[in-house]
Amino acid sequence: MTLQKDLATLTDLAVEAKDMAVERTGGEISGVSVEEKQVENAEITRIEVLNQQAAQKIGKPQGSYITIESDSLRTTNRQVHEQLSGVVAEQMNSLINYSRLATSPTESPVILVIGLGNWNTTPDALGPRVVHHLLVTRHIYGSADPQAKQGLRSVCALAPGVLGLTGIETAEIIKGVVDRVKPDLIIAVDALAAQESNRLASTIQISNTGIYPGSGLGKKRIGITQQDMGVPVIAMGIPTVINSVHIVNDTMKQIQNNQDLPPQSRNVLQQTNQEELIQQVLQPFMGDLIVAPKGIDQLIRDTSRVVSGGINIALHPDIKTENVSMYLQ
Amino acid sequence: MTLQKDLATLTDLAVEAKDMAVERTGGEISGVSVEEKQVENAEITRIEVLNQQAAQKIGKPQGSYITIESDSLRTTNRQVHEQLSGVVAEQMNSLINYSRLATSPTESPVILVIGLGNWNTTPDALGPRVVHHLLVTRHIYGSADPQAKQGLRSVCALAPGVLGLTGIETAEIIKGVVDRVKPDLIIAVDALAAQESNRLASTIQISNTGIYPGSGLGKKRIGITQQDMGVPVIAMGIPTVINSVHIVNDTMKQIQNNQDLPPQSRNVLQQTNQEELIQQVLQPFMGDLIVAPKGIDQLIRDTSRVVSGGINIALHPDIKTENVSMYLQ
Amino acid sequence: MTLQKDLATLTDLAVEAKDMAVERTGGEISGVSVEEKQVENAEITRIEVLNQQAAQKIGKPQGSYITIESDSLRTTNRQVHEQLSGVVAEQMNSLINYSRLATSPTESPVILVIGLGNWNTTPDALGPRVVHHLLVTRHIYGSADPQAKQGLRSVCALAPGVLGLTGIETAEIIKGVVDRVKPDLIIAVDALAAQESNRLASTIQISNTGIYPGSGLGKKRIGITQQDMGVPVIAMGIPTVINSVHIVNDTMKQIQNNQDLPPQSRNVLQQTNQEELIQQVLQPFMGDLIVAPKGIDQLIRDTSRVVSGGINIALHPDIKTENVSMYLQ
Amino acid sequence: MTLQKDLATLTDLAVEAKDMAVERTGGEISGVSVEEKQVENAEITRIEVLNQQAAQKIGKPQGSYITIESDSLRTTNRQVHEQLSGVVAEQMNSLINYSRLATSPTESPVILVIGLGNWNTTPDALGPRVVHHLLVTRHIYGSADPQAKQGLRSVCALAPGVLGLTGIETAEIIKGVVDRVKPDLIIAVDALAAQESNRLASTIQISNTGIYPGSGLGKKRIGITQQDMGVPVIAMGIPTVINSVHIVNDTMKQIQNNQDLPPQSRNVLQQTNQEELIQQVLQPFMGDLIVAPKGIDQLIRDTSRVVSGGINIALHPDIKTENVSMYLQ
Repeated sequence: MTLQKDLATLTDLAVEAKDMAVERTGGEISGVSVEEKQVENAEITRIEVLNQQAAQKIGKPQGSYITIESDSLRTTNRQVHEQLSGVVAEQMNSLINYSRLATSPTESPVILVIGLGNWNTTPDALGPRVVHHLLVTRHIYGSADPQAKQGLRSVCALAPGVLGLTGIETAEIIKGVVDRVKPDLIIAVDALAAQESNRLASTIQISNTGIYPGSGLGKKRIGITQQDMGVPVIAMGIPTVINSVHIVNDTMKQIQNNQDLPPQSRNVLQQTNQEELIQQVLQPFMGDLIVAPKGIDQLIRDTSRVVSGGINIALHPDIKTENVSMYLQ
Repeated sequence: MTLQKDLATLTDLAVEAKDMAVERTGGEISGVSVEEKQVENAEITRIEVLNQQAAQKIGKPQGSYITIESDSLRTTNRQVHEQLSGVVAEQMNSLINYSRLATSPTESPVILVIGLGNWNTTPDALGPRVVHHLLVTRHIYGSADPQAKQGLRSVCALAPGVLGLTGIETAEIIKGVVDRVKPDLIIAVDALAAQESNRLASTIQISNTGIYPGSGLGKKRIGITQQDMGVPVIAMGIPTVINSVHIVNDTMKQIQNNQDLPPQSRNVLQQTNQEELIQQVLQPFMGDLIVAPKGIDQLIRDTSRVVSGGINIALHPDIKTENVSMYLQ
Repeated sequence: MTLQKDLATLTDLAVEAKDMAVERTGGEISGVSVEEKQVENAEITRIEVLNQQAAQKIGKPQGSYITIESDSLRTTNRQVHEQLSGVVAEQMNSLINYSRLATSPTESPVILVIGLGNWNTTPDALGPRVVHHLLVTRHIYGSADPQAKQGLRSVCALAPGVLGLTGIETAEIIKGVVDRVKPDLIIAVDALAAQESNRLASTIQISNTGIYPGSGLGKKRIGITQQDMGVPVIAMGIPTVINSVHIVNDTMKQIQNNQDLPPQSRNVLQQTNQEELIQQVLQPFMGDLIVAPKGIDQLIRDTSRVVSGGINIALHPDIKTENVSMYLQ
Repeated sequence: MTLQKDLATLTDLAVEAKDMAVERTGGEISGVSVEEKQVENAEITRIEVLNQQAAQKIGKPQGSYITIESDSLRTTNRQVHEQLSGVVAEQMNSLINYSRLATSPTESPVILVIGLGNWNTTPDALGPRVVHHLLVTRHIYGSADPQAKQGLRSVCALAPGVLGLTGIETAEIIKGVVDRVKPDLIIAVDALAAQESNRLASTIQISNTGIYPGSGLGKKRIGITQQDMGVPVIAMGIPTVINSVHIVNDTMKQIQNNQDLPPQSRNVLQQTNQEELIQQVLQPFMGDLIVAPKGIDQLIRDTSRVVSGGINIALHPDIKTENVSMYLQ
């Protein structure tokens, strides 16, 4: 059943990949620690993938993954969303060691925020929208007035577009800019794919493992990772779509779990050729059939502001949760 | 199995509703005639629903439904798309009797094109986009210069928005405008929902039965129909989404059709509570989970030009297939 | 000097029209009362045009014109903008007598907000943007739950587009909708043209005199006025452009005022053919050359939220200045 | 009169800068050659700035400047626009020596197209729009199929945004990408500022001198020039705005030229403090007051397609003038 493993690659969420691995192997996964806690309006899960073996088992690189889950993300309510921006900022900062970033204590570290994805495709526009709302300051750092930069770190941002529009691997563009700007930290924001529909627009994932944008050309690609970029990378994302393959697969699993079925038929079902089944249901688009909520435009509008707000609060000491809306462009 | 019938209401395509009725009843449906023919780059199906009984059986009002199917709609190729605009125009005009429309032979009939749907939601933006590309002429008909209107009919257009944004039933807005403008014909364009993914962005439906925009408030609603508007209505649309409920349902049907299953298990499967199954897979969004191709933005951009082109050629005698692109705004 | 009078028609602001009339006639204008006051962050001027003679002199219909001037409108600062929404609401409500609107004291009056202008042209998009942000409620008034509508009046909204895109006079569309929806009050929002650049994006005008959208076809047109619509009309707008003709004219006036010029040359200048001068500078676009600030996109984004907020606070008793941002879509 | 010289910097067009220099100095400018010819639908001017002295006199760097002028650019007519794309391609290619670009005769040179300017500000969106329409191919050059790239050169593209949104000098971003992608040629497209309104949206300038995007931070900046980028740079642009300062200035010049004025008053006028005059007319926006035609959105839509088409024809041998529309995205 190699498809099961392929399906795991169709989720960008470590929390789902971990659950799928548990289901496959039928038990705990050594080398993976999970910690959960409840805060106002949100549930936070922190998964640590502690070694390479664990990473291979769940199909996600070694590192820390924080998941903030909140149904309130789906409801337009600025006050709750401001508070969630505060939660995002706090969780982000738990993965960043600012004192190590800057080369000298008197110098502000330079932070480069990357908005991955495509402006013109709503469910993929989270990254560019976040960049659009950010408080960008690096260009005022060169100016004479020390007051203008007081309480603000040096932040710059880029929405590099997608391979199909630029003809250039996104990570290549970023690596080029990183070599010029020499940031001390990269924050990469992207729309994610989930496996389960109840995660859509209700989950924010923050990790320190980097991210590989889009799909490659077969040849060895570079990623937006500390290894390839030379500086720490924080990746943030919100699932905005699920692949329709999951809907077919989940339906099949539900049917297999029907307790009224005679055992021999369950064997038959387990031997079903999943790929053929998926092909019958989803052709001609197959994996290119994307499932999103009806109100995706409003959801992207709202969640991009929560993430921008979170980044603004985390990076700029003078921006507080209670006044974060004032700084959103 | 009332859900089966509900599923039928989730497709806007008469050709699919007819197929589903055939499958349910297991044979021909009296009162429904079907005619198919092949033209360059497209296959045309004309379904006539001849009486009320037939209308109830397939769940679509009495009238004529033309389906133009072409995989070329999905590929950006202006030359083929111009030719398809010509096909659309020809099929449209087979449903319009211009000589009956105008009150006098020397007077141009006034045609009102309605672009239903929501500008800000890509898969729902077909109607407003079509209106945006149209050659609108009614306002130059009042002017002195008879040359300006030579070879052009009097066309006006409106994209009224959606209930959630206006607070007004869309058909109410249109009825109000119709009472003032007094058109001789209404053409209503909308994005449609299909049952099968292979219809997405590859099918154009044209009918003379009108259309009911969006979902109502429970109270008796008015439609964009000849009965409610007082003038003939041509409805045109292209399926841009399928409801994810269909994916669950199609998967179940494929599994039930597995010939290797022992007969008794097939009985169990047939007794499966479909609604519960759908709920397990699709909560919390349920019917609000919409499936669309990855490249929906480009598909909407291309198909809206094909439809606008078709309407321009059909309505304005001076616009020919070979020069239609020149007149698209 | 008929051009001077034509120039007066190129401003939509009563406060400028009044100043130009004072300058032309060299003194007070009888039948026009002016009252000024200062509030936090804004200066408010209320002009009453008391009779037809006064109306003709200043080229604006008889009625009340409130101008809210605030440089803070031009600076993105949500807290100040919320406070300005409160000022807008208060001034709006000084022109509305709600108790007279509703047919019965237990019934909510129905209010129709019209967003005039063109979505796709930034400086003309104020009206459609305001409509986009509004809290629209009329469609939930039909539902059973009395709680849902508690503290909210029945508001609906329409962005009818512009003549060039629809082929229908905008006021005709609105009159049609008014005849169906039967509102008790119309609020029409539009981008305005000013004479002086320092008014751009810093002035909000509110009047009870209605508005004539766009330019006509020569034949007698209907307006969005109480006379033509049959219900009271509040018109609101913000100047977003000046006509470049004003720049030519202002330059000429400044030169004429040069005290160093010998008297005889001033006579020569006063006899200058203004139209020829304008033609020499502005051809081939002439009056179609529009002057707007560089940051017009951000200005429209900000000011449309201030106006939407003001309308939301004015119309819905449960929306207060301190929570208005929560209700902006 | 230093302002006169400053005004020269407010035009991006060499043809205007040359005319202003001729007017200032009252005669031919040595080191500048001008050649004019007429083609179908357009007039072509080629200015060669032959040495540093000439460059300083007209305020434009040494190199070749081609101006294509056509009023037809302002009228939506796809056939004429396709033909103009052909003219653009021919003129572009007169500045490119392909055989020198590629490192080997069997290898395709890699061409990087840069779309300068801001997506979200209509008059500044020319560059990003051109990039959006381009046929980008570099990413398919890595694939196995030699047929896919037959007749196409390797083209990639980037719309880097503007300093205010990214916090990074645009030329820095490009230099970083150039260092990674190692293109053999850069084509940089930008919206330009003109001095005279009759140039707006009717002129295409192509030069081999590079371009300096936006305004700098005071410190020494890098440009998109052969010197800074290390590869040849073709700059292309269309004037979409004029600075309102020109309107004030042109008005003043017209008045000064009035033959009826007594000579002594002309002296007074010539001593007028221009800056003060400009301040009186244009405060508080001053140089940030931008003049654009009413229909700028449609003009940008049309002209961006003409330029994209021109680049597609010039770069890809298999794209011909007669089928260029087919390849516009």
